[in-house]
Amino acid sequence: MSRKNRTDVVAAASVMFAEQGFHGTSMRDLAKKLGLMGSSLYSHVVSKDELLVDVVREASSRFQTLADEVATMPGTAIQRLSRLVHGHLQILVKDPHQARTFLNETRFLPEPERDTAVAMFDRYQRAYRDVLSSGCNSGEFRSDLDVHLAANLVLSLLNGTQRWFNADGALSVESLASEVHRLLTLGLNPDPEANAA
Amino acid sequence: MSRKNRTDVVAAASVMFAEQGFHGTSMRDLAKKLGLMGSSLYSHVVSKDELLVDVVREASSRFQTLADEVATMPGTAIQRLSRLVHGHLQILVKDPHQARTFLNETRFLPEPERDTAVAMFDRYQRAYRDVLSSGCNSGEFRSDLDVHLAANLVLSLLNGTQRWFNADGALSVESLASEVHRLLTLGLNPDPEANAA
Repeated sequence: MSRKNRTDVVAAASVMFAEQGFHGTSMRDLAKKLGLMGSSLYSHVVSKDELLVDVVREASSRFQTLADEVATMPGTAIQRLSRLVHGHLQILVKDPHQARTFLNETRFLPEPERDTAVAMFDRYQRAYRDVLSSGCNSGEFRSDLDVHLAANLVLSLLNGTQRWFNADGALSVESLASEVHRLLTLGLNPDPEANAA
Repeated sequence: MSRKNRTDVVAAASVMFAEQGFHGTSMRDLAKKLGLMGSSLYSHVVSKDELLVDVVREASSRFQTLADEVATMPGTAIQRLSRLVHGHLQILVKDPHQARTFLNETRFLPEPERDTAVAMFDRYQRAYRDVLSSGCNSGEFRSDLDVHLAANLVLSLLNGTQRWFNADGALSVESLASEVHRLLTLGLNPDPEANAA
């Protein structure tokens, strides 16, 4: 029965949405988890939709901060891609429930919030397209790269790790990010020259 | 009010689970979609859980058929990896609702079915580990590869495409698979020697 603020409510909602799904979570369950009476929960929020909007907005904002950082970062395309890979995986790991809700439950947002989320994701993805294009121009990446497709594939790989990566396991997020970056830039290919690059 | 068999019911359930989530689907919605009275639906199935079990088992069985094919396939590790990449993406595309339910909703299976699904997935993943190990031994892939991690990353990339790939779009599944395979084997790296390999 401790005092809860809106931040506590949103954080608890992101845990429940991640574990049980948006549709598997009721306002009653959420109130119970927070140790609040239902009526007290409704003094913080008016609907479950509103909580999902908040979780998705917070996640989007973290990703956009990373994109903004990389947009003004000096360095090669390979270095900037490395920063995107490390930064994205760090965001996924820092708040896994928020990340899982963002990845799996955004589709259940009501309109127009769903469109807004899609537009924000496209804006974020632009950072990947920009880095990949600049690497094609500089000769760091192959010149015939389909930049749009490659950006989708890079993000598929990054987001796909969310299903299994456990930050408390033997593999650190830094080691994961280094391996992902190595796979993206050099592939499985053993060419010693390429691996020395 | 046409006659429906169990296959129709499972197929309709996979569409609804994919679009609305397992928890967002009620037996009442499902009966309505099938044009059945609720009581008539219960002559086919006893519970929503049972339908999820069927969808997950069918998807697992398709993936395992691919793994079994690759286990006895002649050819290099690169060729066998290519077959896994193409085959996996074809399964995802052939029945996108089944695939989406498999990827997103398996976690909501009741025990012991959930454990069974995890064991089947691990068995499937073994096909990837075997191909990667054999490529390390043959010198096709780098010798210091962490095979377990690499198998997870390959499947992350493949499964991550399910969020955005649209088989009715401009890009065919064959082109997608070729690009994924190229990224996995050679990376973004422009080295002409590596790209000629």
